[in-house]
Amino acid sequence: MQGGLFITIEGGDGAGKTTLITQLTERIYKETKRRTIRTREPGGSPIAESIRSIILDTKNTKMDARTEALLYAAARRQHLVEIVMPALKRGSIVICDRFVDSSLVYQGHARGLGVDKVWDINRFAIEDCMPDLTLYLDLDPEVGLARIAENQHREVNRLDLEGLAFHRKVRDGYLQIAEKFPERIRTLDASEEPARLAEAAWVLVEKSLA
Amino acid sequence: MQGGLFITIEGGDGAGKTTLITQLTERIYKETKRRTIRTREPGGSPIAESIRSIILDTKNTKMDARTEALLYAAARRQHLVEIVMPALKRGSIVICDRFVDSSLVYQGHARGLGVDKVWDINRFAIEDCMPDLTLYLDLDPEVGLARIAENQHREVNRLDLEGLAFHRKVRDGYLQIAEKFPERIRTLDASEEPARLAEAAWVLVEKSLA
Repeated sequence: MQGGLFITIEGGDGAGKTTLITQLTERIYKETKRRTIRTREPGGSPIAESIRSIILDTKNTKMDARTEALLYAAARRQHLVEIVMPALKRGSIVICDRFVDSSLVYQGHARGLGVDKVWDINRFAIEDCMPDLTLYLDLDPEVGLARIAENQHREVNRLDLEGLAFHRKVRDGYLQIAEKFPERIRTLDASEEPARLAEAAWVLVEKSLA
Repeated sequence: MQGGLFITIEGGDGAGKTTLITQLTERIYKETKRRTIRTREPGGSPIAESIRSIILDTKNTKMDARTEALLYAAARRQHLVEIVMPALKRGSIVICDRFVDSSLVYQGHARGLGVDKVWDINRFAIEDCMPDLTLYLDLDPEVGLARIAENQHREVNRLDLEGLAFHRKVRDGYLQIAEKFPERIRTLDASEEPARLAEAAWVLVEKSLA
């Protein structure tokens, strides 16, 4: 069904996802002359952005974990239907900042809802539109949080307010699902300097493009 | 787990749900001196109301049916956790205008997503908090839509803009699930005059209170 290539980038905050996506987009263009559709989760379309604003609003302290999981799945669905699926059908390369693995890890594992249950509601949202390649940027959460603290330009959202123990669970969850889906999810060491990380990522993307 | 009584009112638009809920609330107080928590779906708490506003916004014409189903489930979850479950634990009577059956009928049956699939995502939202009694107000949709057209005070929302064929499917869906869950869902003839309808509803509620 997919004519294009669907790549997702996963990892804790501060792992360098945004920087890597910029580098990959440039490298893909340089090497192949193909343009990349760069998007992010949750959001990417007006309805999905409205849902995003509810999820990330720091005032919504009473948000139940199951509500949060359902909202992410809703935003994911809308973003897929409006942005990702049409782009893949046109044969484009799509790089998405976070996708279903974020829900499995944050809501399923770290919040304790259960990876299988969160997978069930996401299967309803995604149907069969899974990524061809997922790059997981693995990093000690203390390092990631320190990087965020240094970055003055980024607004703090509701999930940043979670403690270190939560972010450790997130890393633990990512390592578990990376082990579970070794064909699709490739783990990269995000403590490497950005140029070396980008090179390692490009080697994997190049293989998927072949 | 439930010390209270959880009653839901279902039916197409114009069937008289709001009027019946007012009458039932008064009758319950008159007969038992018990106060009723009256609430509605989707909404009933600040986060759920934010979700409601996305669902019902007439500008959101690109809303995918699966996104809609996930948003209803998210609003339902939050409303249950913040409003319904605490009230039931305190031993209150809760009357809710629409609940899970609306999703099964509108998204599962009328929009064709499949009643079983919509039930699966709602089971995640509800866990085991199902209504003790559901009153389905059955009415020919032509009569219901004519009643709405006469009512100048009510704002038109996104779902009102659906055609008659859609509302016929809604009725068909309600009749099917009422047949499937005869113990919980009781069908009332909403073409009856309001006082007779309210009396018939009270007889059923009184049994559940006993």
